[in-house]
Amino acid sequence: MNETFLKACRGEAVDYTPVWIMRQAGRYLPQYQKVRAKVDFLTLCKTPELAAEVTLQPIEILGVDAAILFSDILIPVEAMGMDLEFSESKGPVLHNPVRDEAGVRTLRPVVPEQDVPFVMDTVRLLRQRLQVPLIGFSGAPFTLATYMIEGGSSRNFLHTKRMMFQAPDLFASLMEKITENVVSYLDAQIRAGAQAVQVFDSWVGVLSPRDFEYVALPWVKKIVASFKGRVPVIYFAFNGGAMLNRVKEAGADVYGLDWRIDMADAVRQLGPDTVVQGNLDPCLLFGPRDEIRSRAAEVLKGGRTARAHIFNLGHGILPETPVENAIALVESVHELSGGKRLQHG
Amino acid sequence: MNETFLKACRGEAVDYTPVWIMRQAGRYLPQYQKVRAKVDFLTLCKTPELAAEVTLQPIEILGVDAAILFSDILIPVEAMGMDLEFSESKGPVLHNPVRDEAGVRTLRPVVPEQDVPFVMDTVRLLRQRLQVPLIGFSGAPFTLATYMIEGGSSRNFLHTKRMMFQAPDLFASLMEKITENVVSYLDAQIRAGAQAVQVFDSWVGVLSPRDFEYVALPWVKKIVASFKGRVPVIYFAFNGGAMLNRVKEAGADVYGLDWRIDMADAVRQLGPDTVVQGNLDPCLLFGPRDEIRSRAAEVLKGGRTARAHIFNLGHGILPETPVENAIALVESVHELSGGKRLQHG
Repeated sequence: MNETFLKACRGEAVDYTPVWIMRQAGRYLPQYQKVRAKVDFLTLCKTPELAAEVTLQPIEILGVDAAILFSDILIPVEAMGMDLEFSESKGPVLHNPVRDEAGVRTLRPVVPEQDVPFVMDTVRLLRQRLQVPLIGFSGAPFTLATYMIEGGSSRNFLHTKRMMFQAPDLFASLMEKITENVVSYLDAQIRAGAQAVQVFDSWVGVLSPRDFEYVALPWVKKIVASFKGRVPVIYFAFNGGAMLNRVKEAGADVYGLDWRIDMADAVRQLGPDTVVQGNLDPCLLFGPRDEIRSRAAEVLKGGRTARAHIFNLGHGILPETPVENAIALVESVHELSGGKRLQHG
Repeated sequence: MNETFLKACRGEAVDYTPVWIMRQAGRYLPQYQKVRAKVDFLTLCKTPELAAEVTLQPIEILGVDAAILFSDILIPVEAMGMDLEFSESKGPVLHNPVRDEAGVRTLRPVVPEQDVPFVMDTVRLLRQRLQVPLIGFSGAPFTLATYMIEGGSSRNFLHTKRMMFQAPDLFASLMEKITENVVSYLDAQIRAGAQAVQVFDSWVGVLSPRDFEYVALPWVKKIVASFKGRVPVIYFAFNGGAMLNRVKEAGADVYGLDWRIDMADAVRQLGPDTVVQGNLDPCLLFGPRDEIRSRAAEVLKGGRTARAHIFNLGHGILPETPVENAIALVESVHELSGGKRLQHG
């Protein structure tokens, strides 16, 4: 069992810098596309044998140090009573957006083992098969709220912000409901065997620091506090690099960073006792091999100013990415940070 | 003549905080829509009498302290030989994207008074009619390059970054050509009467700080240096809040800030001798009047830590914005910062 990732999460000494890649199971892999050709995306998420299969693919292909459950952040949202569809052109669509009190009232509390048993079944299958730690995950309350209010992706998040500014109490009651569900959802994943959890706040970067502090952060703190001491919690506030002084109040064990901030600058703001995860620009995987390697070295250099560093991209790997470049990145990180390659190669 | 905006640009003492709003001439105004109903967008940009008319509208309606030339950042790009179309659904489209050496080679140097005389004619008309300073503008080289390489807007800017990483010399030669044209374009606006210029780097936030420093910043510095001592240059690096330590190297007279950063935090990074512009979340204009006022007060408070502050939104005003809220914002800024309202009201 390779415990390097979990040790780094806890800030313990490691022999090399562990690495995994956001969206490492996915469209850029021909092996994934082969599975996906047989079933639609939601069916894949809901079929434990298949979800486990694609979760495992990058562990062998890339040689990463952690697996992340293959699922979608909107799975618990659907379980709350929302009508979810994945459209090839528009991405996720929720046909009954929540925009008023009645909408919030009709949301159901999620009972994970009953409403989304396939998630926990996938986790259990994976724990039997994995030789690296398994990361469970959930969307953060603000990010889930934007999907629920907008009914999908958005450009300006106007419906969300209208509710925030015009009906702050209603917005808070929605955030409270979501938070309760996120806690029980992550709790169920952990009980099934997830050894760490990542909370993805993919859209929190549309908030001003002041709004983040008042409307989003308190709920993240609540989630993090719920799992303190059980498993490491990674908080990824995407595009939140200009408000790290607030982000760090989340109390997370690990902070995920996107590529818009210099790693050493981020550590300076988060504090040298912080564990960081990130943050290579995913587009660098389209560059030449020597450039990928030298940029990985720069990120590793920044990461050494922190208590511990888990290497990752600064965002999900892009569908068009050449697989061999992702493999080369993982090899470079291992080699440059301590010579794992010698052990395995 | 109201010189407050120009005084603030130069860091001089002012009686109240000047305010203007990015995209203040535009779709949210019924008066603009009336003009726009008669002609398409590009024709409006290219007809001095009409472009001047819509530039003037917000001065009277909102009571702002500066006018900004009504135009589009792609006007000089079209003059470089690119085939520009504004599509209602997709936004700007450039039908002949620049992706190789041949593409870069065919780009023409812009001779502004000859190729885009309507811009300078609009500036001259406006200077005859305006009682507030006139801001000219251009897109920054990186932002213009993304449009030229992608052929329009983009999500991941993969074509741009591929060229940056795979063909850095070609990318630099494109940036050099664009920079030369931006300099002559802004120079022509200034000679025609523009009293300040803003350089919009709308997409620079997709770069890592390291890439910003090496591939985008040098060209911005060159532009800023070209106008040093002639007119104030405002540099707006949108979504660059996590790399202000690099952004401030541009040497601009004024730094525009988006709403993702706390104004006082930004000033701390830029230095107390800096002049800042911004940075209220444009979505706040959909909130209640008292919330708009109290948030404006918070931004003003942060702005007082800088040498001077020009109030603005953190991004362009949204088309759906209630006009009366924009008026209320301008009034609040004037009133809270020194009582201009008493003079005019």
